[in-house]
Amino acid sequence: MIRFECDYAEGAHPKILEALVKSNFEQTPGYGEDIYCDRARIAIKKACGDMSVDVHFLVGGTQTNTTVISSILRPYQGVLCAETGHINVHETGAIEATGHKVLALQSGNGKITSNQVRKAMKEHLADSGPEHCVQPGMVYISNPTENGTIYSKQDLIELYSVCKDLKLPLFIDGARLGYGLAATGNDLTLEELTKLCDVFYIGGTKVGALFGEAVVISNENLKKDFRYMIKRHGGLLAKGRLLGIQFLALFEEGLYFEISKHAISMADKIQKAFRDKGVIFLYDSPSNQQFPILENKSLEILEKKYAFAYWQSVDSEHSAVRFCTSWATKIEDVEKLVSDIITS
Amino acid sequence: MIRFECDYAEGAHPKILEALVKSNFEQTPGYGEDIYCDRARIAIKKACGDMSVDVHFLVGGTQTNTTVISSILRPYQGVLCAETGHINVHETGAIEATGHKVLALQSGNGKITSNQVRKAMKEHLADSGPEHCVQPGMVYISNPTENGTIYSKQDLIELYSVCKDLKLPLFIDGARLGYGLAATGNDLTLEELTKLCDVFYIGGTKVGALFGEAVVISNENLKKDFRYMIKRHGGLLAKGRLLGIQFLALFEEGLYFEISKHAISMADKIQKAFRDKGVIFLYDSPSNQQFPILENKSLEILEKKYAFAYWQSVDSEHSAVRFCTSWATKIEDVEKLVSDIITS
Amino acid sequence: MIRFECDYAEGAHPKILEALVKSNFEQTPGYGEDIYCDRARIAIKKACGDMSVDVHFLVGGTQTNTTVISSILRPYQGVLCAETGHINVHETGAIEATGHKVLALQSGNGKITSNQVRKAMKEHLADSGPEHCVQPGMVYISNPTENGTIYSKQDLIELYSVCKDLKLPLFIDGARLGYGLAATGNDLTLEELTKLCDVFYIGGTKVGALFGEAVVISNENLKKDFRYMIKRHGGLLAKGRLLGIQFLALFEEGLYFEISKHAISMADKIQKAFRDKGVIFLYDSPSNQQFPILENKSLEILEKKYAFAYWQSVDSEHSAVRFCTSWATKIEDVEKLVSDIITS
Amino acid sequence: MIRFECDYAEGAHPKILEALVKSNFEQTPGYGEDIYCDRARIAIKKACGDMSVDVHFLVGGTQTNTTVISSILRPYQGVLCAETGHINVHETGAIEATGHKVLALQSGNGKITSNQVRKAMKEHLADSGPEHCVQPGMVYISNPTENGTIYSKQDLIELYSVCKDLKLPLFIDGARLGYGLAATGNDLTLEELTKLCDVFYIGGTKVGALFGEAVVISNENLKKDFRYMIKRHGGLLAKGRLLGIQFLALFEEGLYFEISKHAISMADKIQKAFRDKGVIFLYDSPSNQQFPILENKSLEILEKKYAFAYWQSVDSEHSAVRFCTSWATKIEDVEKLVSDIITS
Repeated sequence: MIRFECDYAEGAHPKILEALVKSNFEQTPGYGEDIYCDRARIAIKKACGDMSVDVHFLVGGTQTNTTVISSILRPYQGVLCAETGHINVHETGAIEATGHKVLALQSGNGKITSNQVRKAMKEHLADSGPEHCVQPGMVYISNPTENGTIYSKQDLIELYSVCKDLKLPLFIDGARLGYGLAATGNDLTLEELTKLCDVFYIGGTKVGALFGEAVVISNENLKKDFRYMIKRHGGLLAKGRLLGIQFLALFEEGLYFEISKHAISMADKIQKAFRDKGVIFLYDSPSNQQFPILENKSLEILEKKYAFAYWQSVDSEHSAVRFCTSWATKIEDVEKLVSDIITS
Repeated sequence: MIRFECDYAEGAHPKILEALVKSNFEQTPGYGEDIYCDRARIAIKKACGDMSVDVHFLVGGTQTNTTVISSILRPYQGVLCAETGHINVHETGAIEATGHKVLALQSGNGKITSNQVRKAMKEHLADSGPEHCVQPGMVYISNPTENGTIYSKQDLIELYSVCKDLKLPLFIDGARLGYGLAATGNDLTLEELTKLCDVFYIGGTKVGALFGEAVVISNENLKKDFRYMIKRHGGLLAKGRLLGIQFLALFEEGLYFEISKHAISMADKIQKAFRDKGVIFLYDSPSNQQFPILENKSLEILEKKYAFAYWQSVDSEHSAVRFCTSWATKIEDVEKLVSDIITS
Repeated sequence: MIRFECDYAEGAHPKILEALVKSNFEQTPGYGEDIYCDRARIAIKKACGDMSVDVHFLVGGTQTNTTVISSILRPYQGVLCAETGHINVHETGAIEATGHKVLALQSGNGKITSNQVRKAMKEHLADSGPEHCVQPGMVYISNPTENGTIYSKQDLIELYSVCKDLKLPLFIDGARLGYGLAATGNDLTLEELTKLCDVFYIGGTKVGALFGEAVVISNENLKKDFRYMIKRHGGLLAKGRLLGIQFLALFEEGLYFEISKHAISMADKIQKAFRDKGVIFLYDSPSNQQFPILENKSLEILEKKYAFAYWQSVDSEHSAVRFCTSWATKIEDVEKLVSDIITS
Repeated sequence: MIRFECDYAEGAHPKILEALVKSNFEQTPGYGEDIYCDRARIAIKKACGDMSVDVHFLVGGTQTNTTVISSILRPYQGVLCAETGHINVHETGAIEATGHKVLALQSGNGKITSNQVRKAMKEHLADSGPEHCVQPGMVYISNPTENGTIYSKQDLIELYSVCKDLKLPLFIDGARLGYGLAATGNDLTLEELTKLCDVFYIGGTKVGALFGEAVVISNENLKKDFRYMIKRHGGLLAKGRLLGIQFLALFEEGLYFEISKHAISMADKIQKAFRDKGVIFLYDSPSNQQFPILENKSLEILEKKYAFAYWQSVDSEHSAVRFCTSWATKIEDVEKLVSDIITS
């Protein structure tokens, strides 16, 4: 079985494993206060083009979303996000577990607009008794989104401008950030993204690491006592250096960007093969997740050799599915798939 | 600097690293539903002598304590534990973050007794309006405790008997369980411990793994939907197999027990060196943590070569400190320390 | 200004005030353990036709919803309800404050159907990894709904049957229950309703009392330790007898039902006046809340003499508004309004 | 049975009932936005000598404590208080329900000192990894305390000075504030107390009202969005005017202070009678709660005619009990008790 159902099916990039093996018997302090974390923080600050940001390492995405969001909101506030946002549908209520409502906005493709945010806040304030309702307190987006779509520079400039107007911190979930930045047509750099939000994270789990997400906080008001927040949510890894070692390997010499490009080139090949066959896509995704709408009988054939994710029924004879590539996707596997698409 | 200040200063046992490297490019499903986790679960069940228990893998201790405790308690219940218990003092309120009070019981050495539990419940029920107070809903102990002390088989038989009487599930934090089972004078086996509580965990982070804690649930009532609880607390690792691979390496052929013995033998040497010099210990610890009470001026000399943890002031001239050994402690490092103790 | 904007604009029914004054200097135990609460509980049990139910008195609706819902759900579960449900839109996240997601179902008129509940559960279980999503754990409905609509006996039989099938406790918010039971066309009795759910409450605040909601628990599994839950949510009134005295006055001789009928007869008059003028209604409400769609210019005239609630814009020239009657609505006020409607 | 076991055994002061009856059929907006609440807020601001404070009305003490405390603390912070503090022992974990640990300080008489607060903060910061522990985020005291003791002006000046130094907001639970201000030997005025803390509340439930607590916020930083907090905790009473009417009656012409004095004069009589018999008291209370230590056989006699609260066992033959007076205590009842004490 060749697996395209997710972007976390393999371990880590060999350079990361090598670094873990090499450092294995060194003795370091725990909880992220070691030399590797220090060096990784510097490498990430450089990559973000801002040495004044704070960088923290956490283990996984749900934990990171929960920690960041609950560090920002006042108790009576909620977080605006797309109805398809990960925090709204795939985290078993981890945000609600911290006492906050997810304020879902309609979204066809996983993105939300500055107008939607402005409207939500306006409607809240127009209520005769706004204190009877959850107050929007921040905005959460993913880039790329759960649907593979990406925010353009202009999208983000407009969204962040509204957020600043309304005093709503903007948080970008970058679980697949590398694939968004490498996506075909993307016009946003990591430096620009750093300036266009208050806090975001750089996903490692799906982009080369065994695990790990690097939170980057640029808004001065959100920096204080963040380590307390991490600990309270069970996210302060005892052997914190494991995160430092991995992110150092990814960011010291640009490995993160390089392996992200590979995933996109693999996704592009798959997309092209489907398009050449006249297949329609559920979302217009330029990143590492592709959502072709296929005949159910074609799916039956493909699933004998390939693992992919069922997404949704489109009509009685067609379904949308998801094919994911990653840093680890082998070109020969993609070639096999492409060949099977062509001859199908 | 030679480090004895904690038991998580190094990476992982070489056999674990080897297994991670070897499996690195295999493709597996995520979230603990892979073949390595399956095999590790079976290996642990065998080691526990009970194939009917449920086994789940989480990343860290605070996360595990929070997930287990909040899965057991009703909203108005609290957890009885020693005042020195990890959940009471060193988790930044992670238990309270789930809405539950930690009901601390006095403890000189980190342990609590069956009588204390019985008394706490009796006092609660004797209140004229018990519903105005937090109801004790479970008991949490650590074995070994944060002070290095261990529960004897008889201790645990009595405690668990009271717990069953009072319908209070008993949860054992085994972050250092290997070192407790290998401790000099311990008369408890893993099989017996499995029978003498409702749920416990086997710590990997401090005993050979990069990270990871294996929760073992024997009480049938506590098994349902536990994966939802893990996910809600951000503890469901995407590349779950990393946990399976590590625990498989630790339990397939008894590595866990073997490396635990090494830590104890190292701790015994340190203890003996101090005792031979007439040093008194703060707690009577037979496990991998040793708490000698030293003259402050001796500490100044030792801390030039060795890292250890300051514990508490004893009088104006003496302080208690903690020396930890682990699976990774090198005999030559211990020999240097012993030699320095002897000549001090 | 004559007020029709809500059903809590006045104090209490005179019989209630009289009972409060009469008992004022009696000394009783606190927290609901007095003779008045005892007698009120019996009166309510009789009215429900089931002496085995548990009856508890709380002060307000949000508090009651929060207490009941958080007493039922496991941490990873959410509550299914209409998107317009009070707990979803008008309680400032009080449910989320207890860690639970509100799982909103589409609803045109405030009601939800048994099919929607079945579908929601089916979809949850069909997910490849249901533990990544909030598990539906109970169903919340209001009767009458926030839109004035009511559940028929058949509606409730079907809904409760599905709930029992799926092991989802059914909770009915009866903040306006009296007005629902008295509504024109209602075919449900209090006895029947008691049998067709697991727990519900009888609203006092909007139906004759100064304040107070009487929770009726028929499901045996939900009874245990409910007073702890009330106290934890700050709902255990020190002078609990105030609630007993009020509910005793309301239920000892059927006052609750009698005054509810008055409110409906007042609402019917208003509804008829509007209908006779050809006015369309936003919802088909047979209870004490009426939602006529009026020309904006008519509203400008009406609002000089009457207070009513703005509900929503319908088109550029029309808006829906809400007129509420209550136990306290004066017939002369209604007659004035009707006359103004006729001549408008 | 003559009841001295608590200070909430009766209804309300007749002037309050009268005001409720008189206003009963007036129509007002809900949720505290009526003319009575407006007037009561002004009356309280005047009594506090500061027209810039914010005043909010809530129903009960536990609700008020929870709402205020959770509005102040950051998620990882806890509240310092006496181990005997109401929030620590008698609120069924309502504070923990909002995610915060109660950081209990030893206390013999219910009070805590500025030194204890300073020491707690110092110890927290001295920890090698403070982020592993709950950060003290505010200070809670009761005046009078649960033991009847009161803070002198000097006590409060010192405590508040330390709190300001350490940036820890000081919150005073004034559930029995009237009785503290009227206590024999009290040297603190309401105006002074307003200046010596960041937020406090004036208890109505125990001092003349049917129910109700008036929160007074002087710290500008704590004022924002407090109504959202009240609503989220289920404390926004629909018929909010009931609270306004009551506090207006209590504060318009000084009734609150007058009836408090009555309670103290009744308590003094009881205290004197016991002292004259040579009885020792558990606490040195100058307020409306008296804690004599009596022979168990005397208690058996007294409890035939009087209700009082059992407090704690002192030795095998003696127990401490609590006698409470209130605004409603009848002089003839006190005289009976005094006579029975004398002749006992």
